[in-house]
Amino acid sequence: MANEVVLLETWASMYGIRVRIALAEKGVKYECKEENLRNKSSLLLQMNPIHKKIPVLIHNGKPICDSAIIVQYIDEVWSHKAPLMPSDPYERAQARFWVDYIDKKVYDTSRKMWLSTGEEHETWRKELISVFKQLEETLGDKPFYGGDTFGFVDVGLISFYSWFYSFEIYGNFKMEAECPKLVAWVKRCMQRETVSKNLPDEKEIYDHAEASKKALELK
Amino acid sequence: MANEVVLLETWASMYGIRVRIALAEKGVKYECKEENLRNKSSLLLQMNPIHKKIPVLIHNGKPICDSAIIVQYIDEVWSHKAPLMPSDPYERAQARFWVDYIDKKVYDTSRKMWLSTGEEHETWRKELISVFKQLEETLGDKPFYGGDTFGFVDVGLISFYSWFYSFEIYGNFKMEAECPKLVAWVKRCMQRETVSKNLPDEKEIYDHAEASKKALELK
Repeated sequence: MANEVVLLETWASMYGIRVRIALAEKGVKYECKEENLRNKSSLLLQMNPIHKKIPVLIHNGKPICDSAIIVQYIDEVWSHKAPLMPSDPYERAQARFWVDYIDKKVYDTSRKMWLSTGEEHETWRKELISVFKQLEETLGDKPFYGGDTFGFVDVGLISFYSWFYSFEIYGNFKMEAECPKLVAWVKRCMQRETVSKNLPDEKEIYDHAEASKKALELK
Repeated sequence: MANEVVLLETWASMYGIRVRIALAEKGVKYECKEENLRNKSSLLLQMNPIHKKIPVLIHNGKPICDSAIIVQYIDEVWSHKAPLMPSDPYERAQARFWVDYIDKKVYDTSRKMWLSTGEEHETWRKELISVFKQLEETLGDKPFYGGDTFGFVDVGLISFYSWFYSFEIYGNFKMEAECPKLVAWVKRCMQRETVSKNLPDEKEIYDHAEASKKALELK
């Protein structure tokens, strides 16, 4: 079977980065199509008519949407190397639970902190730190969320790393001081080319966040 | 391996019903523990310390949380009969997409309609009907979402059926008129004892919804 793989994404999206890392882990070659979310392509609207969101993976013409679902799909289709999902059903359920936690908590909380001021900002700032502390506790003393190997939860969280610097600036905290074990985990992940080569520069992400914030405030 | 299976739930929860149907499909015997969500048991708080929500499946002492994750777990552990997930990775991704759609759209939209009045109520009412129309379109002419067999998406949506009557009353619409194919699908699902024996009575659900609404309004 021909493997024509196209990824619709935007360079700064943690969810797009997630898919890129999973494809890199599997050694899958693909074409990346950058979307402009203010002027979505007809291909995106056709491939994800329900949510109209990136990322979308198009495999031999067929679309798969939602990054967590895409990563599971990639793991199941290219199962010959670098298994991301644990082989045990209980561990698999736990991995799904934590990626869902990341999806529900990290993005929403950081966005609310980013866009609020005063007391509200302080509430979301504390909440974001507590989310990272929870994620640190879940990691425990393991090298990776996947245990000895880099897995589904690792892919799910490391894709947010380029945004940590912006979280620190907007939240006025230091990840190293709050979550030293999580920072050590980041360093272990960054030793993998599949990760380091696919994460955008943190300063560029911050400039992007600042520009987006200004654009939202001007609306 | 001993199979000690305990389900923490509340009788009216569509998410608890979902798990009950999946366990029935697999012929798994289990103990059901009804939770009082206004006074959660120490067992629930211990088994789901992160979200403190039902349903939780406790299998040989180990908790699994989130109904969609629980149903996948059940399908993977009791794989000897009634497979719920499609065997093809692409179909599996699609099934996960639609259960996620149900989780994001049906519950939230119906709740917003239920609690709102006036123009806002009208907006959510229209949105809820359009969500069901979308789900009807996705079903198409297939007997079940799983094709010829009852599967993951069928379990995911039929668990809401006991609430349809309340949706119709609060939304002042008739499912039969809006989505006749979906109603025909409900009838097919109801022919399964695994479904019909696990769905609460629609009138009792309506009484429960009315009582909950009054309790919320008094707060």
